[in-house]
Amino acid sequence: MRGGLAFGVRVLRGLAQVMLLDDARAGAVFGLALLAADWRYGVYALGGAALGTGAASVLGVARGRIRTGLEGFNSCLTALGFAVFLDASRPATMLLAVAACLVVTVVTATVVRLLQVWELPTLTLPYCVLACAVLVAAPAFRRIRPPGPSIAALPRVASGPTVLRPQDVGGAFFRNLSQVFFLDEWYAGALLLVGLFLASRVAGWMACSGSATGIVTAWALEAPAARIADGTMGYNAVLVALALCGVFLSATPATLTYALLGAATATALTPAAAALLSPSGGRPLTWPFVLTTLAFLAAARAFPRITGARTPAAPRPGPPAPT
Amino acid sequence: MRGGLAFGVRVLRGLAQVMLLDDARAGAVFGLALLAADWRYGVYALGGAALGTGAASVLGVARGRIRTGLEGFNSCLTALGFAVFLDASRPATMLLAVAACLVVTVVTATVVRLLQVWELPTLTLPYCVLACAVLVAAPAFRRIRPPGPSIAALPRVASGPTVLRPQDVGGAFFRNLSQVFFLDEWYAGALLLVGLFLASRVAGWMACSGSATGIVTAWALEAPAARIADGTMGYNAVLVALALCGVFLSATPATLTYALLGAATATALTPAAAALLSPSGGRPLTWPFVLTTLAFLAAARAFPRITGARTPAAPRPGPPAPT
Amino acid sequence: MRGGLAFGVRVLRGLAQVMLLDDARAGAVFGLALLAADWRYGVYALGGAALGTGAASVLGVARGRIRTGLEGFNSCLTALGFAVFLDASRPATMLLAVAACLVVTVVTATVVRLLQVWELPTLTLPYCVLACAVLVAAPAFRRIRPPGPSIAALPRVASGPTVLRPQDVGGAFFRNLSQVFFLDEWYAGALLLVGLFLASRVAGWMACSGSATGIVTAWALEAPAARIADGTMGYNAVLVALALCGVFLSATPATLTYALLGAATATALTPAAAALLSPSGGRPLTWPFVLTTLAFLAAARAFPRITGARTPAAPRPGPPAPT
Repeated sequence: MRGGLAFGVRVLRGLAQVMLLDDARAGAVFGLALLAADWRYGVYALGGAALGTGAASVLGVARGRIRTGLEGFNSCLTALGFAVFLDASRPATMLLAVAACLVVTVVTATVVRLLQVWELPTLTLPYCVLACAVLVAAPAFRRIRPPGPSIAALPRVASGPTVLRPQDVGGAFFRNLSQVFFLDEWYAGALLLVGLFLASRVAGWMACSGSATGIVTAWALEAPAARIADGTMGYNAVLVALALCGVFLSATPATLTYALLGAATATALTPAAAALLSPSGGRPLTWPFVLTTLAFLAAARAFPRITGARTPAAPRPGPPAPT
Repeated sequence: MRGGLAFGVRVLRGLAQVMLLDDARAGAVFGLALLAADWRYGVYALGGAALGTGAASVLGVARGRIRTGLEGFNSCLTALGFAVFLDASRPATMLLAVAACLVVTVVTATVVRLLQVWELPTLTLPYCVLACAVLVAAPAFRRIRPPGPSIAALPRVASGPTVLRPQDVGGAFFRNLSQVFFLDEWYAGALLLVGLFLASRVAGWMACSGSATGIVTAWALEAPAARIADGTMGYNAVLVALALCGVFLSATPATLTYALLGAATATALTPAAAALLSPSGGRPLTWPFVLTTLAFLAAARAFPRITGARTPAAPRPGPPAPT
Repeated sequence: MRGGLAFGVRVLRGLAQVMLLDDARAGAVFGLALLAADWRYGVYALGGAALGTGAASVLGVARGRIRTGLEGFNSCLTALGFAVFLDASRPATMLLAVAACLVVTVVTATVVRLLQVWELPTLTLPYCVLACAVLVAAPAFRRIRPPGPSIAALPRVASGPTVLRPQDVGGAFFRNLSQVFFLDEWYAGALLLVGLFLASRVAGWMACSGSATGIVTAWALEAPAARIADGTMGYNAVLVALALCGVFLSATPATLTYALLGAATATALTPAAAALLSPSGGRPLTWPFVLTTLAFLAAARAFPRITGARTPAAPRPGPPAPT
């Protein structure tokens, strides 16, 4: 019974880690937001987090990672991605999601090991690698491919009006959050923001400023208003802002500036990830967030003006950190 | 004379290393399988292994690598790939293969150095990098390009019946082996299996279970029966199974399960590699094997239930291992 | 005043580092070549080098890197690339170039940190990553995209006569240099060569032999004569030859051979980079130079016959070298 409760807390922390938090209450609110948007998405996300956490326990992964939810968020997103892109109601999608949650636990261990040379976190890189590979492979398999022709296409020049109306801005502000979980509903984004503030005031404000930076950057570069309004231009900016000010770098005026530069960079690069994967039938997922954040974190040590003090620490080869 | 014999043994070990063995007798049987399928393929493969081994000697590579055939298998596959994809009878193909065997020796040293940080083996990564680059560049050069239009194309949805007939299964079982050497003939696969059992009973059985896993996975996901029967869905599964149970991880029930999970993963990801490279005119080669095996090997340390004991060894920076 | 002079020297060294030199006089000649071809290109290049050098100072990057121009050459090429590919006269291009120079300073710190594990130099990798991403993302933003349809296309088989006329050879020889700075004018290449000889006789001769190797390789493989004559087949060969004989490896007969093998490899792989990026709308930039040089440098330690002596040095994790 107590074991079940502890496991439940870890699963909710897995959901919370999608937004880089280790707070079970925030995870519970995120779960509510998913269930409110589509109950099947909620089931896939919770089931994915549970499977990843469980698989890591069975395989004997270091306890500290499991306890803080770090073994649950990549499997959560993987299962959720399958539900969104491959048809949530098919039994084949469910079975495949179960298998993928097992494999993503392996890929998480891979990424932990590769990136520890530079003391970098995994972020959602394991999910990006596996989900992208499965989406790209899907048209080859009748059991899992979505109906209709392949989505593989050469990238085209964006079209459509670029003037933002007030309701576009409001919708974009919240959908930049909800798209982190593939949700189109603005109220899901509002609920996610509640969860963020519940866990940490800094996290809540960074999510707001990341979303605003995403909107301003996309507007200044004249992206189509429809792309801004549906949140697909700005969800990476939210995650970058969260990661670079308060989570992996402590929150200071200098890191705030650095984080917003990162958020603007991730916004400008989101169409680049889409264009690079589009001819193969892939999707940008959270690649722009992962690559921008890893780049800015790896670079931060070279900038004493950002990190506050010269950090002479060398890349320390060592065993996987136990916590 | 004795030097010539020793060199010949190393060349045959180079052939054997394509299947991760260092047994000259197995290499001799593999050579026979190639000659039986097409004598020119046999000449290119043996010549490639000899050139790579020779180039490494001239450049002063550590003796241990040369003695065990580790400097011959990437050049063997590179030369063979040129014979298969660029027209084996043209003198230009021969000259280019000679040059490529020299360059792949350099790329092998690169990959050894890059991956030693994580204590990972090179596998066929040097071959994949170089052969893929040359295939993609070939249409730009009249001297080497294959006749006809470029094979670059957007990936399409697979079509064709998915019901496997008994003869499909039998053919697939052996062709999953023969396709490692680009061979379509089932009897070449049978001969390769003889070579594997000759070198190691574990290797023979792992090749069989890898091939079976590849067939079952592709069938369960409903790949077209023709793709399963010709061996192009399953050759990566054979190599992954060999690598993860008996070669780089010791053979135990736990690593057997792990290896078969890896084999299934590589099978599902084979069309992903094809789709990612197809718009540029590339081919999947052994990318799925290389990436899956490296990922599963890097991850294995985090799983004491798989490796049998907590391995606290850190990524050890050091000079290229002399053996 | 003296500070301004010191800063100016650093900016000119930034220009010189595009050709791997740290000589301000060479940088001044390179600047002249740019101004002679198109004054706006000169302004963007000098402005880019100044912005990168300035941003690195503000961020507190190690002084040794700033003094030798190592913080100026990636921003120089980034700004220049924007001028060439996105329309130099638009204010939006200028503002974007300023922002990109700041971001490329971050990416430079990232690459320094990632590659120091193997003691490899950054080369123009930061520029390649950022410029490629922006070019690929540009069609999504009305403010920055070039007029006309997207350049994304499947790679095609090259066509056109392959017989080189004398004037083709002469033009190619100098344009293989000028294309390093995206310039089509042969006299710009001649001026660049003057700058190289001014800084170092070895550098001048290596640029000549790299250019010649590029022409011979492309001709032997039968690339279209027009592609050879305009310098787009050979500019990577020039840079590889410079890097591998005299800059990162000391100039000896052995490294000369090694450098020319590298130059030939980079020439053959230039269309590969183009084909891999073309379906997404990217350009090869200096990717072939970067990848070939990093591979040959990482490999060099394994070849005592090339480096002159067994170098048992391990990949030394440590802080960014101060010089």
